[in-house]
Amino acid sequence: MPQTDLSRYNNAWYSPGAPAIKRLLWYFTNVLFFKNGWNPLNGPKVALLRLFGAKVGRGVRIKPNVNIKHPWLLQIGSHCWIGEAVWIDNLARVTLGNSVCLSQGAMLLTGNHDYGKPTFDLTVGAIVLEDGVWIGARAIVGPGVTCRSHAVLTAGSLTSQNLEAYRIYRGNPAVLVKERRMTE
Amino acid sequence: MPQTDLSRYNNAWYSPGAPAIKRLLWYFTNVLFFKNGWNPLNGPKVALLRLFGAKVGRGVRIKPNVNIKHPWLLQIGSHCWIGEAVWIDNLARVTLGNSVCLSQGAMLLTGNHDYGKPTFDLTVGAIVLEDGVWIGARAIVGPGVTCRSHAVLTAGSLTSQNLEAYRIYRGNPAVLVKERRMTE
Amino acid sequence: MPQTDLSRYNNAWYSPGAPAIKRLLWYFTNVLFFKNGWNPLNGPKVALLRLFGAKVGRGVRIKPNVNIKHPWLLQIGSHCWIGEAVWIDNLARVTLGNSVCLSQGAMLLTGNHDYGKPTFDLTVGAIVLEDGVWIGARAIVGPGVTCRSHAVLTAGSLTSQNLEAYRIYRGNPAVLVKERRMTE
Repeated sequence: MPQTDLSRYNNAWYSPGAPAIKRLLWYFTNVLFFKNGWNPLNGPKVALLRLFGAKVGRGVRIKPNVNIKHPWLLQIGSHCWIGEAVWIDNLARVTLGNSVCLSQGAMLLTGNHDYGKPTFDLTVGAIVLEDGVWIGARAIVGPGVTCRSHAVLTAGSLTSQNLEAYRIYRGNPAVLVKERRMTE
Repeated sequence: MPQTDLSRYNNAWYSPGAPAIKRLLWYFTNVLFFKNGWNPLNGPKVALLRLFGAKVGRGVRIKPNVNIKHPWLLQIGSHCWIGEAVWIDNLARVTLGNSVCLSQGAMLLTGNHDYGKPTFDLTVGAIVLEDGVWIGARAIVGPGVTCRSHAVLTAGSLTSQNLEAYRIYRGNPAVLVKERRMTE
Repeated sequence: MPQTDLSRYNNAWYSPGAPAIKRLLWYFTNVLFFKNGWNPLNGPKVALLRLFGAKVGRGVRIKPNVNIKHPWLLQIGSHCWIGEAVWIDNLARVTLGNSVCLSQGAMLLTGNHDYGKPTFDLTVGAIVLEDGVWIGARAIVGPGVTCRSHAVLTAGSLTSQNLEAYRIYRGNPAVLVKERRMTE
């Protein structure tokens, strides 16, 4: 059987979407103001995200200890919540609609590797979370996934498949458990 | 279908159980002495918890990088272990009996949202872990759950249901796997 | 039924493999240069690991926020990747072959407790990850596990059993899902 040889790994094709100096500045901004929990204030974090190229709507709440890879690949609608210790590992574009809730410890993973190749090639896939989606605490959304309007991924669950609108999914891998019925 | 509108979210009914100044002081105490790992000493952490209103028994061990939301809603019996990077997200009361072990990375979640309402209303539920309960590494206990005496939730598992005494549960959602037989 | 009494816990039999002063120095080195994310540089981390007794091959990449318990019990082959926020909780020896990938947030757990004993005795088990193994993001490998050559544990999964060579496992507990076919 062929064997993995990570010395042959080559992700030169991948463009992170920003020059090295901007990535370096963001690295330390992320460490000091996002990943680090000393700053409980929301406003400066939203301002910093926009400064680094993120599109952020109105009324967005960003809790402490959030980890964001590339803000210039991030779009957040209005009235979204980014919970404590959320990890947006966006090597590819991540797009949140309006009123999306990422609960504490949720993780959005956009990178993967081709485990069939000895060179373990990097692959990336954008994530789209439409309006009203709720990603539960410590749940994980995999690369290339679209969660349709008001889908729910319960706490601790993982999906690498698209989620249908107004449906609730649970487990690893997450399976459909029921409809999300909403009433005024 | 109705849609979530987080701009209409209103948790004014919720009382965190302490005035704003106390919450602010705890926020930074938590960041500096608990979440931050530089302090390996146990004694000062127990003293700080008590100062902020937690009831803590004798012989309690608190490891580094622990995250506690509201110490005044926390009661810990004697000889409990709070493992490294444990997260006690206690919007509601959390009560630990004696000789309870929360292994590294375990999470106690007391908050939830009514996903059937466009206002995504906050709901909270107290957690009770009776004597001898063991919550495994990175396992998650949901809101309102009582784990009866000596129940075990294995590593990486999640429960949103009560656990019976002297029983072992695994998976997400956790299911009963076997009895916990104990001998001297 | 007997009851757990953690005041009777006694791990005096366990030897961490290094004198107290070395463990203390490592504790703060780990906090300042590994767990803390401010240092993006790889070279100093590899040098520090070796200084504290780890065997580290060529071309190893160590990302930020990594947590390592006892470097003197750690052996890493060449061209391995230790991803962001990986947690190597090595109370016992952890051995990685060549071109092993631990993705972000993966956890290697070597400690356990005998839950059948009121004294909750510590048990430890070495972990071996052979060449080409891939432990996915936030996956957990339990004590005593050997993952044979090129086994894959998918993101968010947990295994407390050995994994066979060139096989892919998923879930908690992880089950075999398919073969890992590799082609040049």
